[in-house]
Amino acid sequence: MSDLPATTAAGLRGPADHSIRDQIIEAADAHFSRYGYDKTTVADLAKAIGFSKAYIYKFFGSKQAIGEAICANCLGTITAAIHESIAEGKSATDKFRRLFKTMTVATTEMAFNDEKLYEIAAHSCAEKWPSAEAYIEEVATILAGIIQEGREAGEFERKTPIDEAVRAIMMVFQPFMNPVMLQYNLDAVPEGQNEVASLVLRSLAP
Amino acid sequence: MSDLPATTAAGLRGPADHSIRDQIIEAADAHFSRYGYDKTTVADLAKAIGFSKAYIYKFFGSKQAIGEAICANCLGTITAAIHESIAEGKSATDKFRRLFKTMTVATTEMAFNDEKLYEIAAHSCAEKWPSAEAYIEEVATILAGIIQEGREAGEFERKTPIDEAVRAIMMVFQPFMNPVMLQYNLDAVPEGQNEVASLVLRSLAP
Repeated sequence: MSDLPATTAAGLRGPADHSIRDQIIEAADAHFSRYGYDKTTVADLAKAIGFSKAYIYKFFGSKQAIGEAICANCLGTITAAIHESIAEGKSATDKFRRLFKTMTVATTEMAFNDEKLYEIAAHSCAEKWPSAEAYIEEVATILAGIIQEGREAGEFERKTPIDEAVRAIMMVFQPFMNPVMLQYNLDAVPEGQNEVASLVLRSLAP
Repeated sequence: MSDLPATTAAGLRGPADHSIRDQIIEAADAHFSRYGYDKTTVADLAKAIGFSKAYIYKFFGSKQAIGEAICANCLGTITAAIHESIAEGKSATDKFRRLFKTMTVATTEMAFNDEKLYEIAAHSCAEKWPSAEAYIEEVATILAGIIQEGREAGEFERKTPIDEAVRAIMMVFQPFMNPVMLQYNLDAVPEGQNEVASLVLRSLAP
């Protein structure tokens, strides 16, 4: 099995390379889910997937690079779920609740339904992987948009500098959006999360 | 050296036992600070202090019991600092800011000025040691008192059930009071912490 994809890829460009990259990510995801990210080496992975170690290194410079690709995929799924949920929001208040709840529920499912993926999530936070940093940035941008919309509609107060409001709310999100923190708060979902959303909305009231 | 305290303690009660217990805690604290809690065994500790392992077990059932005693001492110091700071508060708003800030600063100093003590703090949170749980309970009680005082003085709103307000604020405190979380937020002290305090105070406004 190890020769086939290598041979195919060698004679092709772009899309095929891309699909082998995806194939490695998919197989690594399954392997990490089963055996854990920390305990797996690139050699283990190569053996399990049926590629040579050197061939995997053609696509990913390190195990972390594979972990980051898996992480980026997961965070992309969460971001998509957030956008989808917000699109149905009827007001800035409703959109804020949807953002916070969807993010929490999706993170819980991603990191804790399959315990082994939690390891990747924990590394991404602790080591500030670019994918995790970009995700936090994107959530902050979505949040800023919702606050702006609420201010324009008269739903939210306008005195607090919007950057300060966003920074403070992002901090309040932490126990629910950061998997390292969320692991201690799983029993606070959804009630506790909902109460914190209400607290933030009271702070945003005009 | 190992015989002297044992002989002395054997013939005494209460205060002397207590002082040897303190001596073990103090020596263990210094040893953990230097070599780390995780890597130290009770045997290492016994050797370093100059007591027999069996003698240490007369006072503490396990390494964790010693860790818990150190943890309880640290948390007692933080609680004392909080009470002292609040006593000088001029209003419920001022007391709230003092509570949040003193707790954050004291936790930072305790867990991160001496990195090795962070390990004990992390265990206390992750394993919900009784000392950590009692501390969280005490902070919640102090917080409830401040909110009650602010409501009676007309500084704070009265519509939200006080239990809900306390639960939600305790959740908001987490990134700054839980050392496992605080380690990622050290650069948000004091500015970020102050902005979160302002957010909570806006949520409490009448």
